[in-house]
Amino acid sequence: MPESANPKVAFLGPEASYTHQAALDTFSPDKYTLAPQTTIEDVFAAVQDGSVHRGVVPFENSTNGSVVFTLDLFADLHSKYNDILVCGEAYVSVSHCLLGLDAAVSSDYSKIKKLYSHPQAWGQCKTFLQQHLKHAERFDVSSTSRAAQMVAESNDSSAAAISSKVAGTLFNLSLLSESINDVSGNQTRFLVLRRRDDSDDSSSTPAPSKKLKLTESPEEDYKTLLLFTLPYTPSNPNPGALAQCLSVFGRHKLNLTSINTRPSGVANWEYIFFIEFKGRKEKEESGSVNAAFKELSGVCEWYRWLGSWENRQPAPAPATQEL
Amino acid sequence: MPESANPKVAFLGPEASYTHQAALDTFSPDKYTLAPQTTIEDVFAAVQDGSVHRGVVPFENSTNGSVVFTLDLFADLHSKYNDILVCGEAYVSVSHCLLGLDAAVSSDYSKIKKLYSHPQAWGQCKTFLQQHLKHAERFDVSSTSRAAQMVAESNDSSAAAISSKVAGTLFNLSLLSESINDVSGNQTRFLVLRRRDDSDDSSSTPAPSKKLKLTESPEEDYKTLLLFTLPYTPSNPNPGALAQCLSVFGRHKLNLTSINTRPSGVANWEYIFFIEFKGRKEKEESGSVNAAFKELSGVCEWYRWLGSWENRQPAPAPATQEL
Repeated sequence: MPESANPKVAFLGPEASYTHQAALDTFSPDKYTLAPQTTIEDVFAAVQDGSVHRGVVPFENSTNGSVVFTLDLFADLHSKYNDILVCGEAYVSVSHCLLGLDAAVSSDYSKIKKLYSHPQAWGQCKTFLQQHLKHAERFDVSSTSRAAQMVAESNDSSAAAISSKVAGTLFNLSLLSESINDVSGNQTRFLVLRRRDDSDDSSSTPAPSKKLKLTESPEEDYKTLLLFTLPYTPSNPNPGALAQCLSVFGRHKLNLTSINTRPSGVANWEYIFFIEFKGRKEKEESGSVNAAFKELSGVCEWYRWLGSWENRQPAPAPATQEL
Repeated sequence: MPESANPKVAFLGPEASYTHQAALDTFSPDKYTLAPQTTIEDVFAAVQDGSVHRGVVPFENSTNGSVVFTLDLFADLHSKYNDILVCGEAYVSVSHCLLGLDAAVSSDYSKIKKLYSHPQAWGQCKTFLQQHLKHAERFDVSSTSRAAQMVAESNDSSAAAISSKVAGTLFNLSLLSESINDVSGNQTRFLVLRRRDDSDDSSSTPAPSKKLKLTESPEEDYKTLLLFTLPYTPSNPNPGALAQCLSVFGRHKLNLTSINTRPSGVANWEYIFFIEFKGRKEKEESGSVNAAFKELSGVCEWYRWLGSWENRQPAPAPATQEL
């Protein structure tokens, strides 16, 4: 089958990025053509304009928190991505390495003068950086794999990248140090995007080998993302409005798993709230999620459903459970 | 009076940073010695160890959202900053400029190959950057004023910084473009930190010229910040726990003004919640804030009061009110 016949999946590139790994885990390269994009917004645009079947974007890191660029694209202040819904997720273990051109530098980090990485990575390797590389100047680049590529092209043995082992191999760099992240077991969660009018055929995102055992409660097997705004302005405060909106989910026994806020873009110090909870919006108007949405619409200013998908959160590792 | 006799105020430097401006707006240089620090954590450390009277750190930008580095220092996962409380705030208008060595570049942005700024600034100037500087490579540095200094020292007319006009003057750079932020009226909010055992004498942070007219409701005149965690783990979900915690504030007529989450640092996909609301914790156990805290302690896992201070949010500009 010629490659062009396969459905395309856009992901935040370049190759060897963690998003690439999430895309490979979800979409077999035998059946899909994986298309690297320069920015997260490029992935949204490719899904929105229908030029790809699915998109894969980073959403949240277990150490460093939410990816605000992705949240802002969902907030969609300029109504460019009205048709985008989340239809899946993927968890990827993130193990950062220090990569450079000269293996001898691994015995003397003081030789490293310039550090390249994605901004999220600084926050994930604080202890190592504080201990060994406080002196080095940091340069922010668009992805960890781009950082590795820049060091490879720099011809400068005082430059180093924080990136993945895979990127080190791809760009032929020396491994100066492995697993430099603060928390072992560091993971990033990625979301799979589709167009609203594209069928949500779960057979198109199989990965059956990674399929988790479903729990006894069907609500626990799915997640839903939505955003809402509150009916107040600084000049017309509405005490308790946020708590009223959130209490809707408790009343319908929907377990809130995360909440995020971003500036509304309308007025200073007003916010858009992102809520994620366990449960799935049914296609008909039935079910507790639809009932909660109906109630929410009476207390929030405005809300938008951003998709429901199968929960693929890995079971906690034994070491984590002990805590 | 010799300078060393004045109480010290630590701020995120270098000089001409927006945090410097916030510190100058709050602490008259006639009465205080302003001491620039390299990182936000250095400011926390200086307040914690008592080597300075107050600290000033960035907290939130009206376009780009929360400063996660500051939130993580309040989260204080390693119990290094137990004694830090917020005792004030300052709002500074942020107007970004494009600065370079050669004024002629202002007529041809394609000559700019390298862009230096603080990561927050990219998110605040998206439209201008997308339109004029998509081709330029971005380098992340520790502050906008450091970006200006680096361009000044680079001797490279293809380098430019996104920084303040004040920094441009300080480092003798040409103003290539003014007010390049997406939103005019862009502001950053800064917090003033004190040690818990240092008197919260509001006369030490006067700024009477900026004093706002107090509202009719005394609760509206103050803000309180606190953090809490929830009594659940992935293996023991507690549906509605977050909504239960938040509903406490509505019951006590305390208006939630913001909510933020950061990873708990204890287990993947668990969170610390930061809540800000209108109101002040009284020193005695009286008042609605103390009553709410008492009730909260029955539903959350753990909470910590992070301070109460006078609300200095400027009245919305007329253009904003029309929205």
